[in-house]
Amino acid sequence: MKKLKRSARLVEMTQYLLFRPHTLIPLTTFAERYSSAKSSISEDLAIIKEVFEDEGLGELHTLAGAAGGVKFIPKVAKEASLSFVQDLCNQLEQPERVLPGGFLYMADIMGRPQVLNEIGKTFATAFAGRELDVVMTVETKGIPLAYATASFMNLPVVTVRRDSNATEGSAVSINYVSGSSKRIQTMSLARRTLQEGARVLIIDDFKRAGGTIQGMVDLLGEFKATVGGVGVFIESNEVEEELVKDYISLAKLTGVDSKTKQVTVVPGNYFDSE
Amino acid sequence: MKKLKRSARLVEMTQYLLFRPHTLIPLTTFAERYSSAKSSISEDLAIIKEVFEDEGLGELHTLAGAAGGVKFIPKVAKEASLSFVQDLCNQLEQPERVLPGGFLYMADIMGRPQVLNEIGKTFATAFAGRELDVVMTVETKGIPLAYATASFMNLPVVTVRRDSNATEGSAVSINYVSGSSKRIQTMSLARRTLQEGARVLIIDDFKRAGGTIQGMVDLLGEFKATVGGVGVFIESNEVEEELVKDYISLAKLTGVDSKTKQVTVVPGNYFDSE
Repeated sequence: MKKLKRSARLVEMTQYLLFRPHTLIPLTTFAERYSSAKSSISEDLAIIKEVFEDEGLGELHTLAGAAGGVKFIPKVAKEASLSFVQDLCNQLEQPERVLPGGFLYMADIMGRPQVLNEIGKTFATAFAGRELDVVMTVETKGIPLAYATASFMNLPVVTVRRDSNATEGSAVSINYVSGSSKRIQTMSLARRTLQEGARVLIIDDFKRAGGTIQGMVDLLGEFKATVGGVGVFIESNEVEEELVKDYISLAKLTGVDSKTKQVTVVPGNYFDSE
Repeated sequence: MKKLKRSARLVEMTQYLLFRPHTLIPLTTFAERYSSAKSSISEDLAIIKEVFEDEGLGELHTLAGAAGGVKFIPKVAKEASLSFVQDLCNQLEQPERVLPGGFLYMADIMGRPQVLNEIGKTFATAFAGRELDVVMTVETKGIPLAYATASFMNLPVVTVRRDSNATEGSAVSINYVSGSSKRIQTMSLARRTLQEGARVLIIDDFKRAGGTIQGMVDLLGEFKATVGGVGVFIESNEVEEELVKDYISLAKLTGVDSKTKQVTVVPGNYFDSE
């Protein structure tokens, strides 16, 4: 690559880092890329680091030494996430969202890439310190959330199917009881999608009693994989018995009245003061 | 926001633009954000524009006048997409991917956010010139592709369900004949997810004869919406009769031999010389 001026180099390095989260980039990579001295690169990184931190984009971790380099960890401040979630809660409380059966219409909100990016960044922040190999979700509505989270964590996604799907080869199936409907259901995961011993972050859009998530946890057992964390976008606290207790929620549905169309959605346990 | 030096401003503006594709940003937004003169902002944008173009990130369109501003259009050069797709084709041709029934295992590849980003950027480039309001896909495997594409185009996503789903309210269902299996299937879309007259980009992972895509086209008719484009990741040319003719494919499966495990995948029609 041609030798760049500092101004161009800053633009270049910014985009390079933003598109490679959780990836260690040796300083020599930048030095060679821009035919620049490592000292100049370090100065550039200091500038980028300051802006990223001021802007709430995340942290730049610098590791010294021969195996050193720089790593971009996307992070969003809790207050910023809270204000974003509070705005979503207000939207979700619109009476016209209440559907027959007490369901809440939210396909429009979950269809906006920017909303998913914010949710993904928040989960990536919440689970940034964990050792993780893969993000897992179950079809259908959890999929965009899982990918948004994974892209900020530089992790692959595996998708559990509701029915055994012929086009992914041999699969492991389990039966589980949906905690709210008490119906027996099946979920399956293609055998070769998950390695033994993988540490898995489970992401889903909605949790009532947690039967679906417990199903995914049981499925992980079949693969000798372990749960590294559980994140749900919205939990409903209208259940008596919670099957899954260790999870992070971004919002909490505390009431839906099909008759009065009144809905109450508040920030989830991620925002509880510790 | 505090007054920033040019170096910090360049980092800030770069990330601001990258996260807001296809969005017109008035120069005054930047001028106010950084307490800088518009002339300085214009100089910054010229630097960013050059790097974005050199790096193959996309174009910065500057619109002059009172309603003017700058718009970032993510674009990837066809040669870069081709080299990326060729690499994917090589991976897809690995004999161990051939599953019983002549299916190809590709869940691992489709689980990598970076792969999806590249595919999304390529579709966003291919359809950048069209007037579009929304990206549509059908569950399950097309979903990550649709979101990746939509995020580079700043469009919302609507997801067609394979079965009528109670939790999204009243829906329009249609029957369609899967061109390859000749079975009658049902797909449905929640009534309020799509506005009348919407111009829709259909994205899916796989196309044989095109029955599923034709189903989505028919469904759009029910909503008085129009097709603004069709993009499929892989098409199979093992069919006699093609139901859908106007589409862009990134790769083409020209043969799967279950016995010899031989697979042939080549770049799709997007790369045909015009």
